[in-house]
Amino acid sequence: MLGVVGEALSQVVAIFDRQLASPIDPVQQLCSHVERYRGKMLRPTLVLVSGLAAAPAWDTAPDIDLSSLLTRDHFVVAAVCEMVHMATLVHDDVLDEAEIRRRGKTVNNLRGNEAAVMLGDYLLASAYQLCATLATPAPAAAIGRASMTTAAGELVQLHHRGDLAMPESTYFDIITGKTAELIATACQLGALASSAPAPSVEALRQFGLSIGQAFQIQDDILDLTGREDVVGKSVGKDLEKAKPTLPLIHHIRVSSVVERDRSLALAAAVGTSGQGMSRELLARIESTGSVNYARDTARKLIARAHQSLQTLEPSPARDALDTIADAVLDRAV
Amino acid sequence: MLGVVGEALSQVVAIFDRQLASPIDPVQQLCSHVERYRGKMLRPTLVLVSGLAAAPAWDTAPDIDLSSLLTRDHFVVAAVCEMVHMATLVHDDVLDEAEIRRRGKTVNNLRGNEAAVMLGDYLLASAYQLCATLATPAPAAAIGRASMTTAAGELVQLHHRGDLAMPESTYFDIITGKTAELIATACQLGALASSAPAPSVEALRQFGLSIGQAFQIQDDILDLTGREDVVGKSVGKDLEKAKPTLPLIHHIRVSSVVERDRSLALAAAVGTSGQGMSRELLARIESTGSVNYARDTARKLIARAHQSLQTLEPSPARDALDTIADAVLDRAV
Repeated sequence: MLGVVGEALSQVVAIFDRQLASPIDPVQQLCSHVERYRGKMLRPTLVLVSGLAAAPAWDTAPDIDLSSLLTRDHFVVAAVCEMVHMATLVHDDVLDEAEIRRRGKTVNNLRGNEAAVMLGDYLLASAYQLCATLATPAPAAAIGRASMTTAAGELVQLHHRGDLAMPESTYFDIITGKTAELIATACQLGALASSAPAPSVEALRQFGLSIGQAFQIQDDILDLTGREDVVGKSVGKDLEKAKPTLPLIHHIRVSSVVERDRSLALAAAVGTSGQGMSRELLARIESTGSVNYARDTARKLIARAHQSLQTLEPSPARDALDTIADAVLDRAV
Repeated sequence: MLGVVGEALSQVVAIFDRQLASPIDPVQQLCSHVERYRGKMLRPTLVLVSGLAAAPAWDTAPDIDLSSLLTRDHFVVAAVCEMVHMATLVHDDVLDEAEIRRRGKTVNNLRGNEAAVMLGDYLLASAYQLCATLATPAPAAAIGRASMTTAAGELVQLHHRGDLAMPESTYFDIITGKTAELIATACQLGALASSAPAPSVEALRQFGLSIGQAFQIQDDILDLTGREDVVGKSVGKDLEKAKPTLPLIHHIRVSSVVERDRSLALAAAVGTSGQGMSRELLARIESTGSVNYARDTARKLIARAHQSLQTLEPSPARDALDTIADAVLDRAV
């Protein structure tokens, strides 16, 4: 099955590159630069594997030629999801004042914030334009909705900047918006492109929501404990930008008043000193078991993701989704 | 006819407001703030009046009830164009570091650049999502294409920052992208929603391109000669951000080498001193007749716009488009 997905991914990349090819030099140069950001292609992979897992063929014709289950709609939707994601990365790097992404310079670092804002808009517009080449408007509506939710999640996060005492439910609203929604939409649209029955589409959407939330929690942990040379992007940025993360929210919640005040002071200092992560603060967060708590929360979400898949017929594609879910927990990058 | 358009515009506003209504407080607050940016509603008006002017009814049934010519498609496309435009304004204000818009504070000024970037993304996504509620994907494709062209125009402008010796053709590429394309698309989609024949759709698109270019040239002139309390937004920003404008490009082209070097030095100083427009530079630009040259260029574009309309059947709607074209030249805001 990996061969089929690999072959399909190369078709996705071809559509992606063709859509971003521009006769205008400054535009072409920037697009070529961000194509380097293309990493694991998680979202396109999820579109394709969800498309395979949701195809009604598994119970009726288990020996079917897998590649026949994937259509141009799958490839286009996969390219659209990656393009929207890439636009988000480019704008996020402006918000985070990040300097490194995938071991290369960020667009804002290389060409300034203005170019990064406009390039993100160009990528978003390209994604929508590509989506409008599909025969039905349902995927475009879903992608539009997902982008609204993503931006709303970021806006709520900005609104709660520095609010480390926020309830966990607010934290979940934020990460569901800014990260999980697009991943859920990728899974959902893959299933829709396979004309899957509604319960399968919904099961895959739920699967995507759970792994998306777990993915963001893992991101929070890596930003706290990761090393820049391993993670491949700037670390310690969450605290610097006063973004509440799950380990920190938990730490503040379980600490005594005195301990909490000291931690809040250290957290605030990270943002103003510009010296990056404080060793003392990290030790304090570890001492309340808050990193482990975040890991446990992510683990529970992955268990829920596995459960969502149980409603689908067993298949190699469903197994692949189980594997992808587990990989979210193991990732160091 | 004005009554029909006015009534239709109120339906457009209702769709606009409904699409941007959010149960999430920080999102709702920001959306309410930018709704204040809604000014003359030029783009929605062009959608509606183009829709009326292109309706095949004028030669066959001149006494037709005008309001019956406008459908939900017109209203939705009109709201979409205004929303895309507003997203552009919000992101432009970030790029321009502008502090005032329509006599109110800009989002970047009020809530910071991060919130402005994300709000712009939210508005863009909302526009696309709304567009995907139409029965056919053609308008969504056109809007996606127009947004790509808008962002590409801004990227080319950034690339040529400070390049006051650029050829006029490059200047026209930039303003066609960043300003005229969306206006042209508004006219085109209004005609398309009326199921107009292809030549009428194309004529209205050309009309939109011409008035859009003239509109931007008038903007250049106002940024140079306007007063902030009349224009209602920050002036002198083009020079401060080293944006080439038509009066300046003309001035540099027709000046002697010595004169040019002095003007270039003054222009560069506007950007670095932060003291706004220099009286000496403005006098120099006037002395080479460069503001009048820009006015003449705009006037020729409006004449071309009138000519494009000649292919349409005479009608009160066509007359209204002629009036709108003339108003572009007269506007002081």
